[in-house]
Amino acid sequence: MNYREESLKKHALWKGKIESAYKFKITNKEELGVAYTPGVAAPCLAIKENPELSFELTARWNTVPVITDGTAILGLGDIGPKAGMPVMEGKCALFKQFGNVDAYPICLDTKDPDEIIRTIEIMAGSFGGINLEDISAPRCFEIEQKLKEKLDIPVFHDDQHGTAIVVGAALLNACRLLKKEISSLKAVVNGAGAAGIAISKYIMKLGIKDIKVLDRNGIICDTDEFNAPQRELAKVINPNNVHGNLKEALVGANLFIGVSVANLVSKDMVRTMSENPILFPLANPVPEISYQDAKEAGAFIVGTGSSENPNQINNVLVFPGLFRGALDARANTVNEEMMLAASKGICECVKDEELSQEYILPYAWDQRAHDSVAAHVKEAAIASGVSKLYKK
Amino acid sequence: MNYREESLKKHALWKGKIESAYKFKITNKEELGVAYTPGVAAPCLAIKENPELSFELTARWNTVPVITDGTAILGLGDIGPKAGMPVMEGKCALFKQFGNVDAYPICLDTKDPDEIIRTIEIMAGSFGGINLEDISAPRCFEIEQKLKEKLDIPVFHDDQHGTAIVVGAALLNACRLLKKEISSLKAVVNGAGAAGIAISKYIMKLGIKDIKVLDRNGIICDTDEFNAPQRELAKVINPNNVHGNLKEALVGANLFIGVSVANLVSKDMVRTMSENPILFPLANPVPEISYQDAKEAGAFIVGTGSSENPNQINNVLVFPGLFRGALDARANTVNEEMMLAASKGICECVKDEELSQEYILPYAWDQRAHDSVAAHVKEAAIASGVSKLYKK
Repeated sequence: MNYREESLKKHALWKGKIESAYKFKITNKEELGVAYTPGVAAPCLAIKENPELSFELTARWNTVPVITDGTAILGLGDIGPKAGMPVMEGKCALFKQFGNVDAYPICLDTKDPDEIIRTIEIMAGSFGGINLEDISAPRCFEIEQKLKEKLDIPVFHDDQHGTAIVVGAALLNACRLLKKEISSLKAVVNGAGAAGIAISKYIMKLGIKDIKVLDRNGIICDTDEFNAPQRELAKVINPNNVHGNLKEALVGANLFIGVSVANLVSKDMVRTMSENPILFPLANPVPEISYQDAKEAGAFIVGTGSSENPNQINNVLVFPGLFRGALDARANTVNEEMMLAASKGICECVKDEELSQEYILPYAWDQRAHDSVAAHVKEAAIASGVSKLYKK
Repeated sequence: MNYREESLKKHALWKGKIESAYKFKITNKEELGVAYTPGVAAPCLAIKENPELSFELTARWNTVPVITDGTAILGLGDIGPKAGMPVMEGKCALFKQFGNVDAYPICLDTKDPDEIIRTIEIMAGSFGGINLEDISAPRCFEIEQKLKEKLDIPVFHDDQHGTAIVVGAALLNACRLLKKEISSLKAVVNGAGAAGIAISKYIMKLGIKDIKVLDRNGIICDTDEFNAPQRELAKVINPNNVHGNLKEALVGANLFIGVSVANLVSKDMVRTMSENPILFPLANPVPEISYQDAKEAGAFIVGTGSSENPNQINNVLVFPGLFRGALDARANTVNEEMMLAASKGICECVKDEELSQEYILPYAWDQRAHDSVAAHVKEAAIASGVSKLYKK
């Protein structure tokens, strides 16, 4: 299928992938009086007395805006807020279909982190959670961190954590198939933007100790060529400031994760890796190495961002269920426990007898996966003490 | 019916009066690829090239946020942004049912006009129009005016203009029934906030020349007791700075419009008005004088904000159709011509043989009224040259 052509045609036909819906019809003065004036004064006054009732008497409990500033849309870069809208709407449609979350796209025409933070802070009382999307690094780290400090609802930058969670799930199931301890892996992460930094931190939490993270300047070090979040990470994973390029880093590694650009990894480079390596070349739309080339060069498991190959690694598997679980628990944040639970929820959807080199993750349209993520995340929110509805 | 009790019960049951809906289901990789990655890159890039395509390839063309800062919710005053949400949601449900407009509530936790303006300006690229709601006067005038200057989509403060348009419609049909020239009326408007000022200016456009506008300090004058918008209006309608209270103002008047508070007008005061007066005491939930008292004191036509009496004057009759028409024309503003057309659209829905002292306006749940408003507004947008889709 020519996705681009077909997509343009369909978007012109749909004129929007989501719409609003009213929950009841108004056909007489009584119905109008209950839903609107004069009756609506009662829930208003109840919320005035106790603002937490905004979660009980309005749609707030289930509403999550998908907010971007248009600076890092897909692999397309800084194409502006309006141009990011088709992606945001797509996420909103997926939010509703797979998580029954009411999501609305909001694009912000500013690149100033302080203004983005303030704008979201001002609006937050309307929402049950905030999904940040396609905001460029390193600005995205500061924006997310400050919003998490200011708000008492879940704030989640999907490009960082959604990607990390689904990569983590793929990795856990790859190790399950290989019967390999995750802590024994030598990892190379190429790309040190929002996704790369988040993935690196996340797989360290999963147990990986030996990890090299690279951007276009090579292995990240605590030196001037790298930005603040990269240097912070380098202090932890590269304390001796080892330099090197991608080719050098890959020698002897048994895990490659790419969130960079097309065609950076050759078959020869794969052949320098350890036996039975795992490769997740996730650059979109063209990966760092093609699925076929990676397999031919000896990769045991390959996962890409594309649906055209086996093992599509797509954060669609994460965000609908993650927010469903967080909203159901009325979590006041998204913490590490909830993220790890989300990975686990994905992994469990692939049964032992189904697990294979061509099937390490459930399909994005498998509702069981989303339900599993939601259940695990809700449970983790309660167990970690961040649920406003349930005590552990 | 005990509206408050029933409303509280129903709001707790509904947990939100609107929700989102996806327009198609994703069941396989092709559908995911068209709606989301990789296909979605095509509409994104098309919008990047031509931002106007955001009206063609996303739901922007049909999307209107209902935005409040919570400072003037219903008759309840400054109860805060979260407490205003049930009203905003109610409007969104009405927007969809009667105008097929996709509307989302956004409450802003700031009272600073500059910050409100900037917040809305930043988000505007996501929307086809902006509905401002329940923002206190005189701040609302500045906020609306500046947004109209900055944005090329319709900006509409419903408390001002929605109220003025429906009052105008009621007035036109009252005159039609009375066979009276509107220009011959002596009018008293009590209440000089958002609605009172807008109504006063609007009925002057409809032809009224003799008009006294009062707030709690009496007839508005160009003196220190009154705020800037009131003084501006006073310069036009009260150039000699005539002072007076409501009782004095009503003597000899034949039109009273109240947008103030309960029980300010007595039967005796009505008896001092001209023969067959028209009274629109719109204070909510308790009017300036009850329907029954006004009738007993000799009022020819009485219209109130309540659905319990004949002639409910409610801006529900305006905003769904007005935005429907503006969006259909892709108007770049809401101008005077469109507002006058909206009043006309409402009036025409009451046929000569239906028009009576108890039926001067269609019911709010009469879909024909909304369709009529939409058609008239669209036509007026095109005729006045503000349509981006159609040339006049």
